[in-house]
Amino acid sequence: MLHSGPVQPFYFLGNSTGPWLIKTSTAIIGAPIPEAERVTVSGGIHSPLQEENQWIFKGVVSNHRYTNRDEKESLVAVQEGLNRPQATCAAMILIKKSEAWWELPQDERRAILEQQSEHIKTGMKYLPAIARKLYHSRDLGESIDFITWFEFAPEHEKDFNALVAELRKTREWEFVEREIDIRMVKETV
Amino acid sequence: MLHSGPVQPFYFLGNSTGPWLIKTSTAIIGAPIPEAERVTVSGGIHSPLQEENQWIFKGVVSNHRYTNRDEKESLVAVQEGLNRPQATCAAMILIKKSEAWWELPQDERRAILEQQSEHIKTGMKYLPAIARKLYHSRDLGESIDFITWFEFAPEHEKDFNALVAELRKTREWEFVEREIDIRMVKETV
Repeated sequence: MLHSGPVQPFYFLGNSTGPWLIKTSTAIIGAPIPEAERVTVSGGIHSPLQEENQWIFKGVVSNHRYTNRDEKESLVAVQEGLNRPQATCAAMILIKKSEAWWELPQDERRAILEQQSEHIKTGMKYLPAIARKLYHSRDLGESIDFITWFEFAPEHEKDFNALVAELRKTREWEFVEREIDIRMVKETV
Repeated sequence: MLHSGPVQPFYFLGNSTGPWLIKTSTAIIGAPIPEAERVTVSGGIHSPLQEENQWIFKGVVSNHRYTNRDEKESLVAVQEGLNRPQATCAAMILIKKSEAWWELPQDERRAILEQQSEHIKTGMKYLPAIARKLYHSRDLGESIDFITWFEFAPEHEKDFNALVAELRKTREWEFVEREIDIRMVKETV
């Protein structure tokens, strides 16, 4: 049976105690975020304390906004989950899109995202090596619109670099006004 | 220039001091909400106090999820805003849809909502008499998914009744697992 309780947020915390050690934190577009040493991802109902973290970003796993039936079934058939033992590398990409993007009607956002930019198709090419989870932040009043969390084995880092390079050349990315790219390795304290 | 700050929530408060006097509060589907005398709609960053209100529902004005370019332009051309002096009647409809709805891919939700149920087209028939504003609540962790607020003049109450009766007969409504219908008149204390 499907869970039908209220949607719960996930918190992404930049701190000194998390299991993910930050290697690089790069502002690709727009302003950087404060420095932190490590990252914790925490689900649940209790808000984390601001003073214990260099930064906090919040997001929810929500319904798919663009994926159609065929794409969803292809994704589900091929993708793997987070927390695979060999996937000791992670990346966290924070994205804020422009007001011009959000003002577009649904059909035009879909056309830019997939027909023009092949966002879903490009992500699919790198499955199952690059596991991916999308969190929505905009409606929560956050300063960014999306958090995407990726996990992969060290030998697939070059594939991940190719994936983000492909996406950054697309028409969709012309609507991105802030992008932060944080790379991590798993190293439990 | 478009506002580009963070999205702010709106609070819908059931209390004894608001400008909208409740005439009826009806659970159309599922459990009712606690009784209250009046309603306040409050935008902004400060959370209201639980103890001062019989109930609190929170929602955000977000991007359009289904509307295409033609529909959006037709809506913008015809619709009128809230707070018209003659619109002394209001209705607040709280909706929760099933997990089966939220699991559907985007193309199938769109097909049910418009091709099969004519949700957008039906709302359009009653413009500009019935003004409407949609607030999204699901991703905020609320117990309901949507708050829709309507305002109309007393002579259009029969039209509003016809509008909700039409929508409640649709395929889309088979996915509604809770619906509360609150009717109000403006009567500043």
